[in-house]
This record gives sequence, structure tokens and C-alpha cells, in this order.
Amino acid sequence: MPGYPTPPSPWFEYFARVQPRHTDYAGIAWHGSCLEWMEAARIEVFRSVGLEYSDLVDMGCNLPVVDLSLRYRQPIQMGKEVVVKSRIRAIEKIKLCWDQDVYCGNNSKPSLLGKVTLVPLHSKSGRVLRTPPQEFKNAIEQIFDGKKV
Amino acid sequence: MPGYPTPPSPWFEYFARVQPRHTDYAGIAWHGSCLEWMEAARIEVFRSVGLEYSDLVDMGCNLPVVDLSLRYRQPIQMGKEVVVKSRIRAIEKIKLCWDQDVYCGNNSKPSLLGKVTLVPLHSKSGRVLRTPPQEFKNAIEQIFDGKKV
Amino acid sequence: MPGYPTPPSPWFEYFARVQPRHTDYAGIAWHGSCLEWMEAARIEVFRSVGLEYSDLVDMGCNLPVVDLSLRYRQPIQMGKEVVVKSRIRAIEKIKLCWDQDVYCGNNSKPSLLGKVTLVPLHSKSGRVLRTPPQEFKNAIEQIFDGKKV
Amino acid sequence: MPGYPTPPSPWFEYFARVQPRHTDYAGIAWHGSCLEWMEAARIEVFRSVGLEYSDLVDMGCNLPVVDLSLRYRQPIQMGKEVVVKSRIRAIEKIKLCWDQDVYCGNNSKPSLLGKVTLVPLHSKSGRVLRTPPQEFKNAIEQIFDGKKV
Repeated sequence: MPGYPTPPSPWFEYFARVQPRHTDYAGIAWHGSCLEWMEAARIEVFRSVGLEYSDLVDMGCNLPVVDLSLRYRQPIQMGKEVVVKSRIRAIEKIKLCWDQDVYCGNNSKPSLLGKVTLVPLHSKSGRVLRTPPQEFKNAIEQIFDGKKV
Repeated sequence: MPGYPTPPSPWFEYFARVQPRHTDYAGIAWHGSCLEWMEAARIEVFRSVGLEYSDLVDMGCNLPVVDLSLRYRQPIQMGKEVVVKSRIRAIEKIKLCWDQDVYCGNNSKPSLLGKVTLVPLHSKSGRVLRTPPQEFKNAIEQIFDGKKV
Repeated sequence: MPGYPTPPSPWFEYFARVQPRHTDYAGIAWHGSCLEWMEAARIEVFRSVGLEYSDLVDMGCNLPVVDLSLRYRQPIQMGKEVVVKSRIRAIEKIKLCWDQDVYCGNNSKPSLLGKVTLVPLHSKSGRVLRTPPQEFKNAIEQIFDGKKV
Repeated sequence: MPGYPTPPSPWFEYFARVQPRHTDYAGIAWHGSCLEWMEAARIEVFRSVGLEYSDLVDMGCNLPVVDLSLRYRQPIQMGKEVVVKSRIRAIEKIKLCWDQDVYCGNNSKPSLLGKVTLVPLHSKSGRVLRTPPQEFKNAIEQIFDGKKV
């Protein structure tokens, strides 16, 4: 998807609740729990512009995580509502580079700063999909436009 | 909580989305994934009547699962919305006996029939809490009345 | 698999360690954590008689859980070693009915009593597989004989 | 722990099996599954030099992840054995900087390159623990020496 816009997409918000199963013995969210919320947030971004992730898979396109970087700043407590703020920071060749920051309760400072890179792959061959389905390209365009269905 | 009403509480509904991480190699929800949705559903029932589960824990009362029975009837596919229908079927002495059935998408038949028993315990001693906090008793009463805050 | 032996198979043992991620705010294993150990235990039983579960899937046969019943008796603490004792109690028509009990540390009493029913399904159609692969039948036979590869 | 040795510690190996629950719809390990293996691997490194992580917590010291970076290179398939190779690359002031690479089956190339930073915290206050328990310091020393109990 060459020639893609350089300014990042607008931020999208996804809300989740910290449940007992997300916590560990320390009574705060286990470090891996945030990956769930971040995945759900990305999928809801696609849904917000009309693309169901399961439809994308049915078209033969997967979007696995190939790169992941997380900086934990504040503990996330049981019972709190978290909001995952997500945007596509850049598209490098075919890779989608996301910023995903997690805020806990009413904190104005993020509890977690995340960067996640996805790449479209052929479901079957597992190879990079240099020409993804048109529905995928349309969805990306709408995400950058901040349009929602 | 002796003398408790015998008819079950009304049904409460909790909605969740089947994400990639809930699925396994077969492309449908792994059998343990439903436990997440069921836990979240129970906690939202308490929240709906004004009791935060984390507040209950702060009062020194845990509510662990002591009994669990699940019958899987239909596969639950990625991307679908599931609804967990939950009610307290009965209170046996101090145990809360829940029915929790999971429906997938628009299916009129349940994908999963669940029964879950919880018991209030002292957080520290781990012993059965025969006289739980008043806030807990109030919440139970409101659940049976079908009242929401 | 009609005419199958009525006495249960011998017990197989599977060991696991209770890690931070298995615990919740109460500092003991979250009730769903045991499902992981129980799944791993069943798969190791098959491996012990020479059947790789992933090979079974490649032959077009899945073995989903269709029924599950757990009774939690004792808390399971972080850092402890648990042993899952597993046996096939009975084969009802085509269903495998397992007993799976979890012991924590040196406790002579079980922390958890489990019953799990599996059924062989066609991977693609999702239908019951009345004539499973010969490799599967052989594995079952060896499990009942208590033979290991 | 100033004046700490600059060469990294020796590599430690931890083995795990890729189970159905680790996989997602694509039939390969979900990207978050590796965090489990990596946590277990770090805890086994401490155990190998005689320090139980749960004992450390009992001494009032937690070791949360504060930084995490993962690069996924190759898919990890169901049924394979993975080995997590772990070492402490450096100690920066009080932070433990780990390299943790995951290899799948007989692949000579890593499936995942990980970097994880831990910091000792007071269990109760949540503050950085500038003088951790002596048992912790001893364990670190033995890890760098490559000694095992």
C-alpha cells in the first residue's frame, strides 16, 4: 500500500473491565492481560469501519503480530475500567504500526505505552500478502479518515 | 442467609465478543474461554445492583467458585457476539447456585449450559463466611428483586 | 468402539507448576487455571502411548470437551507443584469419560475433583466421528492396558 | 546492586509444549502465549539457584515486568516442544534486563526474540526496592556464576 498518508490515524477508544482472572497474586493486572485488551481494541477499530476480522480471515488474510513493545508505567487494579487508545501510527510498506496506550480508571497518565506491528499474511501459505483484499485497503483508508460506519 | 426466596432470580444478560485469542486451532472457542465470560457476567450482575466486587474483597469477603458444571452443545465461532444469561437459581445455606447459559450470535438454542456455585469466604482465613457483609446481603436481595441501580 | 472394557484405565500422572499468571488477587490459582493443566495431562496421556494430538488433528479428528464438571476442595497456592491424576473411567459409545483429579504439593487429599467428557469429531464437518482413525483406537487400547511407549 | 558484572549470565533452558489452548484459529501459537513460557522460564532460573519465587514474595518483594519487547520471526505450531533460552543480559541499577529467545522444535533459528525488564518492588507500597533481600542478591550472583543447586 505505497504512498500511504504519513500523519497517524485518529485515536480510537476501547473500554474493558479488569476482572479477577486478569489479576495475579499481587492484586493487580498480570502483565500479559493487557494483550487481550489490545487485541480486542484493534479488532473493534476494524469493526468500527465495517470490516469484521473473521471475514478478513475468510478472504484468506491473517494479521498476526510480528513486533510488540510494552512499557508498564502504573499498576492496573482489579475492578477498574481501562481504556485502550489505539491508532495506526504509520504504514511501512505493508506493515501496520500501531500505538496502543492503556489508561486505568480516571488516571490522566497512561498505565501502559504499547507499540504493535501487524503484517497481512496469506492464511494458507503463511507468506506476506503484498496485495491484500480490497475490503482491507478500504478499511485502512477509512481508519485514517476517522470515519465510522 | 436462611429463609431465602425459592424462585430463582430474573435473568441478567452480559454480552461479549469472541476474539482470536478465545479460539483454538479448530477456529472455534476453546472450552475454557467461556469461564472468562461467565465470571465477567456474574461480576456485572453484582455491579448492576450497585456492588463492586473489588469493594467486597476490600471488606474481607471473597467469592470463589467451588463447583462448576458445563455442557457444551454448539460450537462458538470467532467474531460472533455471545450473550451469557445468568441468574441465581437458589441459595443453599450460604452457597450461591447460578445458572449461566451462553448463546452465540442469533442462535435460539444455547451453545453452553452452565451451573456454577460460589461460596463467600473470609479473605484472610479462607474460612466460610457465615455472616457476609450487609452490602452483600443487600445486593443479593436486589438481584432477586430484579432491581438495577 | 463397542464392547470396550468396563474397568477404568490405570491412572496417569502429569506434573505442573503454579505460576504467578495462574493466580488471582487472592494469591491462589484462579478456578479456570486448572483447565490448562487438565488439557495438557490428557494430551500427555495420548503422547505416552505414542499418539501425538496434532497428528490426530491432521488425520481429520478433533477431540473437543463436551461435558465438564469440577469440584474445588482446597486452594492451590502459587509456587506449588500440582499433579493431575487422569484416567479414562469409561467409554460410552464413542465418548471418552475421564476422571481428572488435581493434587497440590504434598497434600494427600485432592484439591480438585474433575470429570471431563470428550467426543471425536470430524475436523471439517464438526460431526461425530463414529469410526475414528485406527491410530486413535490403538492408542485407547494401550491406555487401558497401561502401556507406555 | 552496583558494581555488577558486565558480561551476561549463562543461558538457561526451559522446555514447554504447545497445547491446543495456546493456539488460535490460525492453528499456531497466539502471540500472547509466549509470555507464559517466558514467565515460567524466569521463575525456573531462580528455582535452579535455590530461590522460590513465592518465598521472595513472602519476603515482601515482587518482581513485575516493566518493559517488554518481542519480535516474532517464525510461527510456533501446536504439539511442538519449545525451548525458552534465558539469560540476564545486564543489571542496570536495580533492573534485571533479560534476553529470552524461544525456539520451536528442531529449528536452529529462533521463533521469537524477547527482551524483558524486571524491577524489584515492595509488595505493599509498590515502590522500588533499592535494597532487596539478601536471598535475592545471592540468587542473582549464582545466576551470573551459572551455578545450579
